[in-house]
Amino acid sequence: MTKEELMRRAVALSEENVKKGGGPFGAVIAKDGEIIAEGTNRVTANNDPTAHAEMEAIRAASRCLKTFDLSGCEIYTSCEPCPMCLGAIYWAHIDRMYYGNGKKDAARIGFDDAFIYEELGRIPEKRRLRSEVMLSGEAGKAFLMWEEKADKVKY
Amino acid sequence: MTKEELMRRAVALSEENVKKGGGPFGAVIAKDGEIIAEGTNRVTANNDPTAHAEMEAIRAASRCLKTFDLSGCEIYTSCEPCPMCLGAIYWAHIDRMYYGNGKKDAARIGFDDAFIYEELGRIPEKRRLRSEVMLSGEAGKAFLMWEEKADKVKY
Repeated sequence: MTKEELMRRAVALSEENVKKGGGPFGAVIAKDGEIIAEGTNRVTANNDPTAHAEMEAIRAASRCLKTFDLSGCEIYTSCEPCPMCLGAIYWAHIDRMYYGNGKKDAARIGFDDAFIYEELGRIPEKRRLRSEVMLSGEAGKAFLMWEEKADKVKY
Repeated sequence: MTKEELMRRAVALSEENVKKGGGPFGAVIAKDGEIIAEGTNRVTANNDPTAHAEMEAIRAASRCLKTFDLSGCEIYTSCEPCPMCLGAIYWAHIDRMYYGNGKKDAARIGFDDAFIYEELGRIPEKRRLRSEVMLSGEAGKAFLMWEEKADKVKY
């Protein structure tokens, strides 16, 4: 499939999802021009705040390819990913991203993407979300255990 | 349970997870001082790059409370959340966050948290991840459909 055909599929998924009562977002993950997995926004349908279209597509692609490393894959998403989804794209080592709508378009119809990008750029003390560091000394032990583990599976 | 007890549980989960072969991360979601859900890093165990401890805890709490809105809940996590998880904490409307290790500690033992924070702060053209805007006009239709939908469930 061509790039345009792959993006049109992501866009079609976003429209179908609105008809089904979900958010206006769709995503496709492709490898060598073929679709590996698709995702739509299932936040309200599944009671899962993490179930954005890109997350659903990444999880499905990982299940399909039986790996947590999606190197060699590309993501086509109907809208610029929010920080959660963009973070997931990095963790999954996806090679390249294509998107249709921008985060400002998403903000205009009531989605918090742009706000969350701003929040993440602030130091913790300046964020709307209150946070507190606790028991750092005790928490460090698991990191030492990880460092010393000879047979760890890195990701 | 006290704040310290809740954080100690998150820390204990992080240590147990290293022993089980997973990443050194644990998280707990609490409401009114009681644990609603727990999570550990399952990336390699489940072949799911999105299965960080906080994500697993948020998904479990949402399943438990049967809602995508975790207002009134707090998250205790053994390490400062990466952008993916922090984004999810915002989307879930969690009230407050407590964490032990910092993102620089995570970077020191080989995790990409700090790098991903830097990447998200850059404009798309300056990021390591290559990206491209495509078919914006066509992608906009789903947003119009969403705006015009009278019975939509907002999130």
